[in-house]
Amino acid sequence: MSNVKVVLKKDPAQLRGATFITGFRTIGEVGYLATRHLALKRNMERIGYVVTKYYRDVAFLDEYGLATPFDIFYDNEKHLIVLLNHILPFQREWNDFAASIIKWIKKISINNLILIGALDKRYKMGNENLKWLKTSKCQLSLDYPQLDKQLLMVGPLALFTLHSEIEDLSAIVLLPYADRERTDPAAAATAIEALNKILGLNVSVDELYEEAKRIEEDLQKQMELLQRELARGGADRVYM
Amino acid sequence: MSNVKVVLKKDPAQLRGATFITGFRTIGEVGYLATRHLALKRNMERIGYVVTKYYRDVAFLDEYGLATPFDIFYDNEKHLIVLLNHILPFQREWNDFAASIIKWIKKISINNLILIGALDKRYKMGNENLKWLKTSKCQLSLDYPQLDKQLLMVGPLALFTLHSEIEDLSAIVLLPYADRERTDPAAAATAIEALNKILGLNVSVDELYEEAKRIEEDLQKQMELLQRELARGGADRVYM
Amino acid sequence: MSNVKVVLKKDPAQLRGATFITGFRTIGEVGYLATRHLALKRNMERIGYVVTKYYRDVAFLDEYGLATPFDIFYDNEKHLIVLLNHILPFQREWNDFAASIIKWIKKISINNLILIGALDKRYKMGNENLKWLKTSKCQLSLDYPQLDKQLLMVGPLALFTLHSEIEDLSAIVLLPYADRERTDPAAAATAIEALNKILGLNVSVDELYEEAKRIEEDLQKQMELLQRELARGGADRVYM
Amino acid sequence: MSNVKVVLKKDPAQLRGATFITGFRTIGEVGYLATRHLALKRNMERIGYVVTKYYRDVAFLDEYGLATPFDIFYDNEKHLIVLLNHILPFQREWNDFAASIIKWIKKISINNLILIGALDKRYKMGNENLKWLKTSKCQLSLDYPQLDKQLLMVGPLALFTLHSEIEDLSAIVLLPYADRERTDPAAAATAIEALNKILGLNVSVDELYEEAKRIEEDLQKQMELLQRELARGGADRVYM
Amino acid sequence: MSNVKVVLKKDPAQLRGATFITGFRTIGEVGYLATRHLALKRNMERIGYVVTKYYRDVAFLDEYGLATPFDIFYDNEKHLIVLLNHILPFQREWNDFAASIIKWIKKISINNLILIGALDKRYKMGNENLKWLKTSKCQLSLDYPQLDKQLLMVGPLALFTLHSEIEDLSAIVLLPYADRERTDPAAAATAIEALNKILGLNVSVDELYEEAKRIEEDLQKQMELLQRELARGGADRVYM
Repeated sequence: MSNVKVVLKKDPAQLRGATFITGFRTIGEVGYLATRHLALKRNMERIGYVVTKYYRDVAFLDEYGLATPFDIFYDNEKHLIVLLNHILPFQREWNDFAASIIKWIKKISINNLILIGALDKRYKMGNENLKWLKTSKCQLSLDYPQLDKQLLMVGPLALFTLHSEIEDLSAIVLLPYADRERTDPAAAATAIEALNKILGLNVSVDELYEEAKRIEEDLQKQMELLQRELARGGADRVYM
Repeated sequence: MSNVKVVLKKDPAQLRGATFITGFRTIGEVGYLATRHLALKRNMERIGYVVTKYYRDVAFLDEYGLATPFDIFYDNEKHLIVLLNHILPFQREWNDFAASIIKWIKKISINNLILIGALDKRYKMGNENLKWLKTSKCQLSLDYPQLDKQLLMVGPLALFTLHSEIEDLSAIVLLPYADRERTDPAAAATAIEALNKILGLNVSVDELYEEAKRIEEDLQKQMELLQRELARGGADRVYM
Repeated sequence: MSNVKVVLKKDPAQLRGATFITGFRTIGEVGYLATRHLALKRNMERIGYVVTKYYRDVAFLDEYGLATPFDIFYDNEKHLIVLLNHILPFQREWNDFAASIIKWIKKISINNLILIGALDKRYKMGNENLKWLKTSKCQLSLDYPQLDKQLLMVGPLALFTLHSEIEDLSAIVLLPYADRERTDPAAAATAIEALNKILGLNVSVDELYEEAKRIEEDLQKQMELLQRELARGGADRVYM
Repeated sequence: MSNVKVVLKKDPAQLRGATFITGFRTIGEVGYLATRHLALKRNMERIGYVVTKYYRDVAFLDEYGLATPFDIFYDNEKHLIVLLNHILPFQREWNDFAASIIKWIKKISINNLILIGALDKRYKMGNENLKWLKTSKCQLSLDYPQLDKQLLMVGPLALFTLHSEIEDLSAIVLLPYADRERTDPAAAATAIEALNKILGLNVSVDELYEEAKRIEEDLQKQMELLQRELARGGADRVYM
Repeated sequence: MSNVKVVLKKDPAQLRGATFITGFRTIGEVGYLATRHLALKRNMERIGYVVTKYYRDVAFLDEYGLATPFDIFYDNEKHLIVLLNHILPFQREWNDFAASIIKWIKKISINNLILIGALDKRYKMGNENLKWLKTSKCQLSLDYPQLDKQLLMVGPLALFTLHSEIEDLSAIVLLPYADRERTDPAAAATAIEALNKILGLNVSVDELYEEAKRIEEDLQKQMELLQRELARGGADRVYM
């Protein structure tokens, strides 16, 4: 039995045929910055949540209200669903997380996914800003070079890609080159530009730089503090 | 299947529409001090217990009798339920604890929660003693500043807040500024004053200082002793 | 589903209304010494066993035959049940152990428990040899001082006490002052004397001292050896 | 639900009333040497297997063919079942292993067990080569001294003994004195001699010495190599 | 309940009587190199996947498209199934992996297995390049020496062998001598030559050397990088 649950506050029938977009706080925080920027700029409505067994005890007020670790947004005009992952799930949950969400996606008749990650820019060799790949069922062609053969994709996005392939879904994976060491809004902007082309959007990238700076200064510092606390094992005390 | 069980010794139908209040032994022990003080001063009747899988082996005599780790009290006059958490649950249980209790709360038709935590006073910037936040369904407005955007709330209280939001319950979170290093009765008093305003109570805060001192000297010392014992792994011995 | 099972070789209907007594190998081994002494002196018949998931691989011949970790005895004349815990269960099993046994006790209509533990004698302040406490449903009064408020009771006995309270059973907890460092037959004798008064028995305490000495020299040394072996992780070897 | 499964390739009805014999690779490897020797000398037919959740990844060709960790043999003439444990199960599986097999033994109407272990010869005090003990239901008497009271028996054999007692089965435990440091074929020979007397067999002990030497040189060296590999955690690598 | 699932995209009835071939990334990567080479040279069609609970987050583009950790291929002409294991499963999953797949193999009426592993060439004593063994139900005879008695076979292939024996399947295990320290295409070539003889194939071994070199330089370096990352515990961070 899955330990990952999707709580939807909207009639799933209305989501049929939508495009599902997500990304994680991995290299350069690109997947997170891009999806958050998209949800905010498009003024998307939150329509649900993902809840997991190892749900992190982190809550905060974001621009749109009280944020939960995995908020689901919907863009009515363009029929888009964005899963915004404020928190990177625990690694032991990654497979369950990806498998359960892909299963839900399939169940509510969504057939298209766009997954946003990043590549370490130290390995960039040509002029391109972005590489991409797709699952077997995807018919699209993009004007970017594909990921090199034998080059490994890792992290939760890799699992979303694997489960999309296994479930015969059409998924595109966008991998802009990004800086590993810090949040990289330029790389997120590259992803937004690719999304604009693929989906016929016109999302501006201006505030991305302030959002990234804000996240780097405030949220990220606190996350680091939180991580040090966790490492100290402070939490298995009878009192805190 | 949940590993958290609510044992109720009262007809749940009589609890409909009550206000549920809880807090934990986190920063400055504020949530614990305030809820314990409220239960004692209002002479509340114990009506139940929460039992968990990783139930701690800690029992003691409190003012009201034999205390269990998570005692549930009821105030008949003001229709209040207080969950008094003498022990901080194990972190691995936090999500199950919060999710199960919120689910129970919803099932017995309680719609209002007041959650009492604290903020580290080293980060206090203005004159206010307390910040607060609320879930989307909450219509109340308080005469205190709201929690800053992007400032993280952590611990079991964060999970109570998240699950309240997800379950469309109305919850207020009170966060007085408190001293991280010791029990902070002044911060607990601030919380009590806010509760008095919100609930139309008139609970005095005088004995809070003695209660806090008592807890600091006696109970807390023993908890520390207990924690050192646990760290030493003394308990997996064939004899003790 | 519980991982703790009571195997009874007697018709449970015959146990209705009996008094259930138990103790553990904790401070001074008092609970164990007292219950073992009681079972042997009263010539009790073994009527069952408790089996757990993390059942220890320890068997030996005791005075009454082949001993299992948790043997259940019955005294027909005085209608007493003694759970003799030769082994301290693994800490991760304590709650399941206590909860399951209390549930079984309730199911077979036993309403009275006497739990035997100990208090560290370094904290003794007056002249009394023993302190005690009781659950809410217990009507008895003993001629000893009650445990101080806010003084913590820990270990498996604390969990038996908590679950007795939660299940509305009448339980007395006897806590003689004992030496932490070694087996303390004098403290066990104090517990036996209290039991004699409460149950109208006349169990002599003479051999307690030899039994304790025997246990200290033989059994305890081997238990220590066993513990060192366990700590060395000797057991996950393909051969031993 | 048990994680231990008996796979039988013979009609269980034909095993009614058989004697079940087993031993483990513990002190001096006595239990293993004796049972393997018995199965080989009596030319027993393999009739089944035990499979566990933490089944070890070890296969090899023994004299009788491809050996699995826990092979079950049958001796038609003397109506004997031998469980040959080439591998010591993981300690966390011991209780499940013993409990499940005892339960299976009871279910197919086997009532007699002979369990072969060993005692550390450093503690030998008299002239006897072997001590023994039995469960309550066993009527046999052997011409060897019984195990001393309060002397602990440990390891998986202790759990087989406990579960035999709990399930009211008749079990004899043979404990020859053996050398802890190496394989001890002399001790295994003592066990074979005792078996010969109890079961009316005439198994010669000559090749025991070569079998032991072979095991010591070949198999044991590899087991040690394997253990070092395991300790190095080599196995959780993406490639090996 | 198994945590290992076979996802088949082909009617299983068409696989009856096929020969199942697999190998792992163990000594010299022989099993992996040989099976991958076979699948590519025979232009096999991917017909399914194995998904596990501890599914690794690794995806990449191989010659045939987007590779998942455990891809299942089919050769229509020769009625062969190849399970290509790009990733070595976590050791705690090995038994479940082997047992579940053997169970599936049996269920879809496949009776023949060829398992490809390797032997450490430091222990080679004669002129032979390969040793082999087979399960009891296998009638084949090969023109190579069998594995020495008492020589241990370990790793996931050992579990496939054990479960094949237990389930009465016919399995051949090919063990070419290989270099432990690096990928060994020569050993993989020996395995391919043996397969050619057994199955009447004519697979050339030329490109094996480039494939191995490619894997050594690219894929293996990344796997090592990945392993260092895992060891650093980078993945349980709130952000990455």
